[in-house]
Amino acid sequence: MADASAAPAEKFSFTREDFLKHFEWVRDFIADEVMPKYPGLPSSFLTYMKEMVEYTVPCGKLNRGITVVHSLAALKGDVLSEEDVRRAAAVGWCIEWLQAFFLVADDMMDDSPTRRGKPSWFRCPGVGLNAINDSFILKSHIVHILKHVCGADKALYAHLLDLFLDVTWRTELGQGLDITSFEGGKLAEEGFSNYTDERYMAIVRYKTAFYTFWLPVASALALAGITEGPAVEHARGLCLAMGEFFQIQDDFLDCFGDPAVIGKVGTDIEEGKCSWLLLRALERASPEQLELLKSKIHTDDTAPVKALYRELGIPELFEKLEADTDADMTKRIADVVAATDGAVPAAVFERLWAKTHKRSH
Amino acid sequence: MADASAAPAEKFSFTREDFLKHFEWVRDFIADEVMPKYPGLPSSFLTYMKEMVEYTVPCGKLNRGITVVHSLAALKGDVLSEEDVRRAAAVGWCIEWLQAFFLVADDMMDDSPTRRGKPSWFRCPGVGLNAINDSFILKSHIVHILKHVCGADKALYAHLLDLFLDVTWRTELGQGLDITSFEGGKLAEEGFSNYTDERYMAIVRYKTAFYTFWLPVASALALAGITEGPAVEHARGLCLAMGEFFQIQDDFLDCFGDPAVIGKVGTDIEEGKCSWLLLRALERASPEQLELLKSKIHTDDTAPVKALYRELGIPELFEKLEADTDADMTKRIADVVAATDGAVPAAVFERLWAKTHKRSH
Repeated sequence: MADASAAPAEKFSFTREDFLKHFEWVRDFIADEVMPKYPGLPSSFLTYMKEMVEYTVPCGKLNRGITVVHSLAALKGDVLSEEDVRRAAAVGWCIEWLQAFFLVADDMMDDSPTRRGKPSWFRCPGVGLNAINDSFILKSHIVHILKHVCGADKALYAHLLDLFLDVTWRTELGQGLDITSFEGGKLAEEGFSNYTDERYMAIVRYKTAFYTFWLPVASALALAGITEGPAVEHARGLCLAMGEFFQIQDDFLDCFGDPAVIGKVGTDIEEGKCSWLLLRALERASPEQLELLKSKIHTDDTAPVKALYRELGIPELFEKLEADTDADMTKRIADVVAATDGAVPAAVFERLWAKTHKRSH
Repeated sequence: MADASAAPAEKFSFTREDFLKHFEWVRDFIADEVMPKYPGLPSSFLTYMKEMVEYTVPCGKLNRGITVVHSLAALKGDVLSEEDVRRAAAVGWCIEWLQAFFLVADDMMDDSPTRRGKPSWFRCPGVGLNAINDSFILKSHIVHILKHVCGADKALYAHLLDLFLDVTWRTELGQGLDITSFEGGKLAEEGFSNYTDERYMAIVRYKTAFYTFWLPVASALALAGITEGPAVEHARGLCLAMGEFFQIQDDFLDCFGDPAVIGKVGTDIEEGKCSWLLLRALERASPEQLELLKSKIHTDDTAPVKALYRELGIPELFEKLEADTDADMTKRIADVVAATDGAVPAAVFERLWAKTHKRSH
């Protein structure tokens, strides 16, 4: 909480550029303090490792990492010491390192040509499948960074390590579930029998919601000394619900968003992806419409599918879900505030929800 | 230590078959106790995960895992309770799980067709590069197993987790160093300029010695309550020296061992691998002999290289190293016993060294 004796705090400000400045010292900590502890590593290897980190870690939207700092600021009434900011930013960077670990691996598994507007790391000259080991190394860096920022506070270190290991494990389950569930080849064979809401929601929750929404907030709560109790339980439910909506919205934007704003052309229909739109359509389609879906999903002929989605009122359904989720969030936020007598203020979640709700990319 | 009031203990016996019985409950613990905690995972996914564990984990020589049980028995004077055995076996299986994690990944990076006499996991139908995520999952299982066997002993859990994370990280460094150091392609380009003893020893130490020799012994020491101090330092140095000799011996057997006994035909010369034999030969070769090495290493014409190794007295050099290491081990073992007033007895290392020394496969 804010120090009551302090002068009224100015609104805390922390931009993407501020966050990127902290990348520099975290990166240098790995290169200049961690690596020299391991004698015998030749300079060519150390250079490769530096380039790998620089290429794979700091180039995304960075929302997950920045959220740690914003959430901690909200928890402390917009008054953060320099040390608070430094520590929260470093934990935020751990989430970005985790994201890099997942993306380097995902791009190999999906054989993706590009990531963040440049070639996927494994496609860079001299990398190839060595990127598998690089992804392991990125994940191991997190342990060093966490240990460093926690310093003598062993309880905080144990809690954050446990949190990161748990969220990583859940994300791996989600990824495993995703890649074994909806292969294009299976679609022809099994029709839509695998395309269930239950499986969709399990994938979304495990693969995305935990590390995108819960991990940043849980990290900030831990940095503020809140590691268990009803506040944590309520906050967790709220973050997972937000993560689920985030993915549904992602599916919606993939089909109906503006490619110029999103920065890419959606390919869910072509890839035969089990999207929320397809699930809703399968639920509502007549036998004839079902035949159309069967013949057009997983082909390049996307226009008839989009037209059918409109005909079945899927965009309106999404708008209703968005309004319902908004109301649900308001209620859930009030629940967390009440469960903690205000120690966890609404601002922790309002900024996150404002960034998520009605986003266009 | 052994309970002094107990009857003279029979020599503790624990076979590979005993160890494999413990695999069953550890595997079932993951499948029946861990996985059900994550609702929404379909049965096809759970079946895939079970098959993946069964295929990748329990089929090696299992020396690393069994060593945990043997070392703990030696530390406790050959008297282990059922609970001691159960716990040590489970930690031993964690090392085998770690080994599976590395091998699944290594086989993808090396594009290996087979492992342990059957197709590499990534080459099994329906697996492919999804095996990257499978390797992540194997690594994450270790955390669940360690937490389970440590139960309420949070200090033991924290220590073992730290140990496994540290050894994993070092092994990843070794693997990274190995794959970026001695690519066949570079040999033609750079000659043998990369082939240095310093780099060779760094790779051996990081990639093999820590997880093969130090991790089993350090795990047993931790289970016996010994986590720091001179005993740990001495034991560590000893295990790493043993690990270094183990790899040199591996290189020797690859060239001069009996394929019928080793179970495979060595390929180090063909692959242009930086072996200990090649390093010794480079050191002793005349300009003409160096030309022969340059033209024959990384080709199928291995006979002239083997003949040159003999001519240069490399087998005798290996025999001398073996005798020297044997003497060094005797001294180092005595040092550990002395540093701990006998709390760490010679038997902890003698069995391990007996298995390593003069092995033929």
